[in-house]
Amino acid sequence: MRVELLCTGDELVTGLTTDTNSPYLEARLFELGLKVQRVVLVGDVREDITLALREAAARSDVVIVSGGLGPTADDFTAECAAAAAGVPLVEDVGTLQFLRERAVKRGRELTPNVARMALVPEGSEVVPNPVGAAPLFILRLGGCRLFFLPGVPREYRALVDGEVLPRVRAELEKRPGRTYRAFRLLRTVGIPESVLDARVAPLAAAHSRVVFGFRTHAPENQLKLMAEAPSQSEADAALAAAEAAARHELGRAVYGADADTYPVVLGRLLTEARATLALAESCTGGLIAAQLTGVSGASNFLLGGAVVYTEQMKTAWAGVPADLLERHGAVSRPVAVAMAEGIRAACKTTYGLSVTGFAGPTGGTPEDPVGTVYCALAGEGMSTRCERFSIPGDRDLVRLFAASNALELLRERLLTVSAP
Amino acid sequence: MRVELLCTGDELVTGLTTDTNSPYLEARLFELGLKVQRVVLVGDVREDITLALREAAARSDVVIVSGGLGPTADDFTAECAAAAAGVPLVEDVGTLQFLRERAVKRGRELTPNVARMALVPEGSEVVPNPVGAAPLFILRLGGCRLFFLPGVPREYRALVDGEVLPRVRAELEKRPGRTYRAFRLLRTVGIPESVLDARVAPLAAAHSRVVFGFRTHAPENQLKLMAEAPSQSEADAALAAAEAAARHELGRAVYGADADTYPVVLGRLLTEARATLALAESCTGGLIAAQLTGVSGASNFLLGGAVVYTEQMKTAWAGVPADLLERHGAVSRPVAVAMAEGIRAACKTTYGLSVTGFAGPTGGTPEDPVGTVYCALAGEGMSTRCERFSIPGDRDLVRLFAASNALELLRERLLTVSAP
Repeated sequence: MRVELLCTGDELVTGLTTDTNSPYLEARLFELGLKVQRVVLVGDVREDITLALREAAARSDVVIVSGGLGPTADDFTAECAAAAAGVPLVEDVGTLQFLRERAVKRGRELTPNVARMALVPEGSEVVPNPVGAAPLFILRLGGCRLFFLPGVPREYRALVDGEVLPRVRAELEKRPGRTYRAFRLLRTVGIPESVLDARVAPLAAAHSRVVFGFRTHAPENQLKLMAEAPSQSEADAALAAAEAAARHELGRAVYGADADTYPVVLGRLLTEARATLALAESCTGGLIAAQLTGVSGASNFLLGGAVVYTEQMKTAWAGVPADLLERHGAVSRPVAVAMAEGIRAACKTTYGLSVTGFAGPTGGTPEDPVGTVYCALAGEGMSTRCERFSIPGDRDLVRLFAASNALELLRERLLTVSAP
Repeated sequence: MRVELLCTGDELVTGLTTDTNSPYLEARLFELGLKVQRVVLVGDVREDITLALREAAARSDVVIVSGGLGPTADDFTAECAAAAAGVPLVEDVGTLQFLRERAVKRGRELTPNVARMALVPEGSEVVPNPVGAAPLFILRLGGCRLFFLPGVPREYRALVDGEVLPRVRAELEKRPGRTYRAFRLLRTVGIPESVLDARVAPLAAAHSRVVFGFRTHAPENQLKLMAEAPSQSEADAALAAAEAAARHELGRAVYGADADTYPVVLGRLLTEARATLALAESCTGGLIAAQLTGVSGASNFLLGGAVVYTEQMKTAWAGVPADLLERHGAVSRPVAVAMAEGIRAACKTTYGLSVTGFAGPTGGTPEDPVGTVYCALAGEGMSTRCERFSIPGDRDLVRLFAASNALELLRERLLTVSAP
């Protein structure tokens, strides 16, 4: 089955936006055993979009198109689709009704530009958008099926997962002689990409059906395992063997797999341990709290988080003695320790976690230059642990890695106490 | 001048790697006044690459190709280029010499697979790679000039900046009637995309040289203005006029332009007002603090931030009376007001800002369902202001808009007090 992707939008051909929709869909299709043949990006130019639609339809069995379905003047993909198919645009009654109700719910009128989103090429199948306004429509052009999706990543992904992939899978299952694939993403923290590569690459020889790939997404490094085989069971078995070997090699550096996220995994560990947490953040400035509270249920374990940029608030909220701050400076081992212990006492939690450091670009001292971060973990039945890190990179990177280094102290502790 | 980009590599069509080379080059070309017509990504499949080269050359004046020039078995772009042009591959003596010396310097033999990198289509112009092995080669196909670059980002960018762009610029200057462009991104908060469009679209008629575009990046909506004219000064003037009209229409909803970010603008307003800020965050869980502290210099105005998920910490850190919590519930107007006033008193700041709400997916009451958020601002010389918002969307969106709605209370206040 030949599949192509077509993405429209001036922002995609002028360097304003990086196309992240296509890699998302490519990976999902690859899991189904499909390698995308071609991805085409075109600007908001009617003739270019119409031509690209015709060309892609002539080459492919399936074309997945995104962008240009919104209410604004530069949204005209439906028009181009109609032109490419040689049919008129027609109003979809169900969509119009949906848009009207949606406007009313938000206390607005249905404006003509919003109502335009109900116009689809004649003969389209129309599927409602579960998380936005513009619907998905599906159009046949010769032997090709074209799916038209909004470009907003949240809506695109919801429609890809809920509507496009099930249809593609059904189509695929009707065809003989296909390749089967299986896929695992192992998520690691604390190992640089080159070290990850050097440790894992020697495994590849013993797993010829599996491709080993690497991806950096600071502060994580990810190992991608892709197995190909003539049957699903062989692909699954090859993947399982390679995954076991990689996990054995990497140990605790692997914090999760596939759709796991670091905050979700940490939240699970805390919940399983019936432990609670308090945070005292200086240079990370609320980043750790924001990460943890991004997950529903964080209120079960995160009792309090203090962003303590100033010495006064370090004293007021985290109980750091003023003379300690004066003697050692705010970025120091004794202050990190006092912050972790003080915040734990203030919030009456199982654990207290602290971060203090120089995120840059200004600040720092000769002994503790920009990038120096102290993280400390205080807890029930343990002596407070404090680590010093030297993190290269800009302010964003220092903050990201400071947050992840601090949380690693907690994860290690939770894994140790839960180990049988 | 019609320009297309063609990128090759299985990693680009299987979701393994996001193409960051193209946005880089697109932005550089746009600065020269060139909008890329089309970007095509194809996998490592000989026929697909050859066909894509022929198609792109037929449509364009310039095609910039990347990837597939390395020493491994899946590098065969030069072969495909030769096939597309109908010429043989020939060994470039200079490149072979360079590769041999490079190998010697690294204490290695020149292996046959490395030596393959010296093979280029007959008739190519060959340009050494200043930071890697594979050279740039330039080939004519009919009226089109094709540039072939390695895909490694460091090498790609060095060759783009040092070799490709100067040649494109020289070509451009020879042409009569070239188009000059000027560009502005206006960043807005608090206006839905459809409303933004409805208010701005009527301006387009009076600014025929300017294209109005829209982009959503929650919680922002952005207005893109692109002016095209036969001279740079005319493009600049057309842009300035359209920008002034858009700013007049949108007023304070425009918080900044181009590379401005919301936290940077807020930080600037606070600093100019010599004002300080304290935060009490419940459902946003540190998101506001993390956003503000992402900017260097936040310590000048953000004295403290409290993440108060529990009632105890709302009382301990934000001074919310326990009976108030009991009577009204944590998600209520009186509690939001008490949080803002209490956190301001605790941190002794000019302003205290609070957020409490139901981010979901669980929680909420019949009167205040998931998505209900109360934000309050307390400050010197003002009565505390509290607003209730009903935010549609998932947990991430509720948190994002809750943060931005809260910060908007602050931005409005700062603009009002600073107004002459």
